[in-house]
Parts: sequence; structure tokens; C-alpha cells
Amino acid sequence: MRKQISYITMPKGFLAAGVHCGMKKDGKPDLALVVSECSASVAGVYTQNLIQGHSLQRTRRLVSEFGTCRGILINSVSANACIGPQGYEDAELTAAEAARVIGVRPEEILTCSTGVIGKRLSVEKMKKGITELGRTLSASEEAAHSAMRAIMTTDLVPKETSAVIEINGHTVTISGMAKGSGMIHPDLATLIGIITTDAAIDSSSLDMLLREAVKHTINRVSVDGDTSVCDTILMVANGMSGQEVKQGTDEYALFAQALQDIARDLAQMIAADGEGATKLIEVRVEDAPSEDDALMIVRSICRSPLCKTAIFGEDANWGRILTAAGYSGANFDPERTDIFFGDLQVCKGGCAVDFDEDEAKRILSQKCVLIRVNLGSGVFSDRMWTCDFSYDYVKINGSYRS
Amino acid sequence: MRKQISYITMPKGFLAAGVHCGMKKDGKPDLALVVSECSASVAGVYTQNLIQGHSLQRTRRLVSEFGTCRGILINSVSANACIGPQGYEDAELTAAEAARVIGVRPEEILTCSTGVIGKRLSVEKMKKGITELGRTLSASEEAAHSAMRAIMTTDLVPKETSAVIEINGHTVTISGMAKGSGMIHPDLATLIGIITTDAAIDSSSLDMLLREAVKHTINRVSVDGDTSVCDTILMVANGMSGQEVKQGTDEYALFAQALQDIARDLAQMIAADGEGATKLIEVRVEDAPSEDDALMIVRSICRSPLCKTAIFGEDANWGRILTAAGYSGANFDPERTDIFFGDLQVCKGGCAVDFDEDEAKRILSQKCVLIRVNLGSGVFSDRMWTCDFSYDYVKINGSYRS
Repeated sequence: MRKQISYITMPKGFLAAGVHCGMKKDGKPDLALVVSECSASVAGVYTQNLIQGHSLQRTRRLVSEFGTCRGILINSVSANACIGPQGYEDAELTAAEAARVIGVRPEEILTCSTGVIGKRLSVEKMKKGITELGRTLSASEEAAHSAMRAIMTTDLVPKETSAVIEINGHTVTISGMAKGSGMIHPDLATLIGIITTDAAIDSSSLDMLLREAVKHTINRVSVDGDTSVCDTILMVANGMSGQEVKQGTDEYALFAQALQDIARDLAQMIAADGEGATKLIEVRVEDAPSEDDALMIVRSICRSPLCKTAIFGEDANWGRILTAAGYSGANFDPERTDIFFGDLQVCKGGCAVDFDEDEAKRILSQKCVLIRVNLGSGVFSDRMWTCDFSYDYVKINGSYRS
Repeated sequence: MRKQISYITMPKGFLAAGVHCGMKKDGKPDLALVVSECSASVAGVYTQNLIQGHSLQRTRRLVSEFGTCRGILINSVSANACIGPQGYEDAELTAAEAARVIGVRPEEILTCSTGVIGKRLSVEKMKKGITELGRTLSASEEAAHSAMRAIMTTDLVPKETSAVIEINGHTVTISGMAKGSGMIHPDLATLIGIITTDAAIDSSSLDMLLREAVKHTINRVSVDGDTSVCDTILMVANGMSGQEVKQGTDEYALFAQALQDIARDLAQMIAADGEGATKLIEVRVEDAPSEDDALMIVRSICRSPLCKTAIFGEDANWGRILTAAGYSGANFDPERTDIFFGDLQVCKGGCAVDFDEDEAKRILSQKCVLIRVNLGSGVFSDRMWTCDFSYDYVKINGSYRS
């Protein structure tokens, strides 16, 4: 069952807090902590960028070495990347402070950083903030929403989603929260995301579940084709529901489906709140000759500034969509290709067809626009989410660092 | 010797004309004809897009079959793409009309089309325009500039360049003209370009010269990462200087260098006049471990909306440049990587260095911005040109078709 109200501490045994520790100039929350009351399994997916932030590298090493954690400390001002040895040290120092405050070992605290590259963490400000986080940590909805707000950068809206399933007559809950909203492109986590659950899952199963869940959801989101140096999704399972999710069982399939829904919700929310976005765009490729061809085409269309500005302008310029498919590297027969905006066909067999421009305008003026490309030559399909490209994207990114 | 004044009919034996035949709504010239007074060798490079316009396909076939031509007819309103069999027929009909007017065979007239996809050529309007072109064809500078203006779409400035070399005491001239300025990305011609010369060159040598010339010039331009369905560069050599350029001679090397200069000029002009551009950006990668790595990085940086909006905003956000290098797929060591804006170092060994923000701002506020990425691990280099990403790019492309 999907929940109307969602927050990261809905699963049993999780606490959260978010504070403003003085790093964001506008006084908004900038430091978050999510804690499990007991040691929890953890799995992560990370950016594929060759450049990786220091906080990320530390987290990756700890997840891989231990597969368990107690908490995650996240700041949304500095990416803690390209700093040199000091960057690792700063990540260690702040993790150690969080560990001290909640009474666990430093290696049980994972670190996520997002924001400007090449800017040191403000360790002293963060230390004070961590003390404050320790004081306000709580399982309450309010505390969880504070944590959500504290991980946002250029995001306009919080992104939280939850699902509840029943296992052996007991309730198991999964919650996710994520921030976008620029430098978003697969194959990556493409964001900072935290998923919590009170199911008991060993870390290798958790890793498999997480990878499977992001594959066709969070790894199918593009805002601008750029990929960041600190994209991370961490999933934490603390077992406090008392219910175990084991591979090969019915519960596993049920849990996997619920997790997939969480990941898809987050993916859609990220695309819809992409920097400067006025619309969510879903691009579907159908009847493709192979899985790879379908993926190449959805990626190419979702990355094309010309397709995305046309949708912003509500201009039914299907030629750009066919063009983006054409240079995607995919193998397909243009003469079997149909293109639709919603249910309105605008291209048949690779050629123009007459269509009602008013109806096209109506479809393109909605908040969600579906673009379907049917290749008519196979059984494979894929889909991806993006947003339109607006003046505000340029505005937001012309002065992000300053 | 480079010429201050340039136009496509500078080489001996070329005529040109440009007219408004009623297709562009704003009354600007929309149809151009370039003619050689005698049969000329011709070579072409074309878009790599799987989708290819009908005019382009016809030209490609004729160039490959005959290697000679007498004239090129270019319209800048319809791409004549994705029309079906009618598109081929329209290309034939208009070529036949141009052939009739100048008294040659239809297969001696090549066709280029650029503009909206899925929109039929206005054959009747074009026929009337062709009659007018026939009447105004001339070797004059004025006629040549009219032809240039008639191939422009969203271009703000004409792009013409010429070079004169001496062979055996005789003058040989090369001239080029091109239109941009969106849907620009390699590995393609990325535009409509015509290059004329009065040298005598057989068509296979011409083909080799043209491919070599565009490789590191016109195939190193990106405006938006999109590639069109009608990109074509045609080079025509009519021999009317009486001087032959043969492979393996000193003259060949001299000619090749002059042609390379022409192609580089056009490349820079295209990037500088990219849709919405306020600045020309040159991205250089130096000391790369391989040619491919250097190319992957320049392409990735030139395609990144985040790098391009930062330069528009004159924000010295070098982290985005390193990030784009990081996701390019290239193999390099971030810890040996230095980044410079002009001569100002902003990143050393993959890490932040203190730099003078005012000086950075001054460099980024100029019309030409040089970004240098030194990988410190090899001897290979590459460079590419792009432009910044501005509000106007969004404006121009939000309503191009309407």
C-alpha cells in the first residue's frame, strides 16, 4: 500500500533531524542526519563519474567493507570534492563528531555531500550543527521533513515517498527521500537519496534489491546530461519490524516491487523538479529491435536541448525527436517509426502526418507530457523521464557558484 | 594569404545568387544558387544521423556516382526530410528547374535543404525563385553575399572566408561560406557549407582534402549536442585557375593548409554565432594519454549545459569542467589534472587553488574564452569550439517551428 503522507522515519527505529548550521547563506537547513536505532544493513549505488567526492569515497569504502551502518550525515552546500587530502580528513572529522554525539563508532556514520565542487566543508560550523542535530533527532514526521529540507540544493519541492507491505501479518515499511535537481543523468544514482526500511535484509540481498530497483527508475532520469561527482543512493535496512526478506521467497518479490515503486516515485519527482522545469516529460520507446536500441533512443531524446526547448515552447516539433533518435547510435528503420504526443500521432512511418495543432498544443501545455516513439520492429521497450529546458535553467546555472 | 573581404565567387568561374522566393515569412532571402561555369570536381561530407533528408540523399548519391557538378541549389526553410517519396520528387523537380534555367543536365545540380523537418518544399515558389536566380546569377561580391544570406536560418551573421595561394606563379583561390547555428555537433558536417576553388583537383583527391580539413575544424564544433538530418559540406573545384593540385606535391600541402584555415575560420564563426551565443568558447585538452581521451573530454565539456551556462553567467565554476571530463568516458588521472581559464589557473592536480576571482570574471567576460585542461599524462591534445548557453537559446528553440 502506498502512503499519502511520507517521511524517512516511517519505518520503525529510524530517527532524523535537519538544521541550519550556517553554511547556506539564505538561512535554510543545510545539514541532515538520519540514524537507525540499531545497526542496520546498508547498500549503495554511486556516480559513475571518474571524479568522486571525498565524502562519497569514504562512504563507498565503508559500505563495501562493513555492509552496516548506524547513521548518515548529509550536507547540501559543499560537494567535498577536489579538495585533496583535507577533503578526506574533513569527512572523517565530521563523521567522528556525529558518531560521538549519538554514541557509535565513526565508521558507523556514512557521509554524503552535495553542492559546490572545490569548496571545503565548514567543519566548525558542521560540528556545532551536529550537536544541534543530536539534540533534535526524532522519529517524528516534523524531524524527518527537516532532514529532507536540509538535503535540498536547487530543489523547489521535497521528494519523499513511502510504501507499506504486509509480511506474515506484520507491517513492513519502506521510505525514500531524495534531492535533485541539476547534474542529473544516468547511469548513476544521479542524486542524493536515502531509503530506509524496517525489514531485516542481509547486505548482499539489499545491494541486489537496490540495484534492481534503480535500474529502470532512478537510472532513467535526465535533467541536463551532466552527472555529478557525489551522486549516491544509500538504502538502510534495520530489521526492526522483526520481518526478514530473503531471496527466493514471495516476500522478496513483494518487497522488490514496493521498492521499485519507491524508486519510480523518486525518479518522477526528480525529473518534475529538474532545474527550471515547467513540465515532466516521459519518453517511451516501444517495439524496438533490442533493449540497447530502446535505451539509446530514450537517452538521446531526454538529453536533447532542442527537444526539451521545443516542449518548453509547447511546439509540436516531432522532427527534433526523430532527429535525436537518428543520432542516438541506435539501429532502427526510420520508415517504420511512428511518433505520438500523448495519443496524438504526429509522425507515421518516419514521415509527417497531418495533425490537429490545437490538440498538440493542448497536450504539450499539460504538466506531464508523454512522448511515444514506436519503432515497429521488435518487442523491446524502455522509458525515461526528463523535464523541459527553460529560461530558468539558464538563470539557475549561470550563477550557481556565486 | 588570407583575404579581408571574402565571398563564394572569388575563385575564377563561379557565379552565385540569392533571392527571397516567398518561403520565409519575414521576407529574407531563402533560396541560393552557386554555379561553376564549367563542370567541376565535387566532394561532400554529410551528417552521420540515421535520418537523412531527401535533398541530402540525392546529393550524396550524385556526388558518389559522378564526382562532378555544375551547380548547387540551397533553400533555408524546409529540411526536406521525413516527407516520404514526395520529398525525393520535390528535390528532383527543383534541381531540374535549376538545370533548365542554367542549361545543364539535372544530375549536374546538387541540392541542399535546411530548416524545418516534415515540411514539404514549396516547389512552385521555388520554381519562380529559380527563374529569378537565373536572372541575377553573377560573379559579383554582391551576388555572392546574397547567396550567403539566402542560406541562413537562425544565423545572425554571414560566415564567409577566403584564402589565396600561389602555385607556379599563378593565383589559386579558395572560398567558403556556411550557415549554422543550431543542431550543431560532430562527427558531422554540422551545417550547410559550400567551399569553392578554381584549382584543378580530381574528385578523389578533393574528397581526401575535404575530409582532412574538416576533421579538426568543422568536426570540432558543438552548439547543443544535437545533429541535424541535412548537414552537408560540398567542395567544388573547377580548375579555372589553370593550376592543378596533385597528391604528393608541395602545392598539395600548401593547398591543404589553406583549406584547413578556411575550415577553421568557418568552425569558429559557427560556434561564435551559435544560437543565443554571447561568447565563443575554445576548449583545449593537452597532455592527454591518447587522442581518443583528448577528444572525449573536449566533446564532453563542449556539450555540457552546466559548463556552458556557467560561462554565460561568467562564473568560474571549474568544478563543472572537471566533472564533465570525469563523465566523458576518457581515461585520465584527476590528480594530475590542471585547469585554466585563459592563463589563470583555477585547479591544480584535480584540486581547488586560490585564484583571483576578479581576474577570472574579467577573462570570462570577454567575447572569446579559452578553457585549458592539462591532463599531465601524455602527449596528445585536441581542441573544440562551442558557445555559451543563454536565455536566447531557449527562446529561439522554444518556438522555432511556429
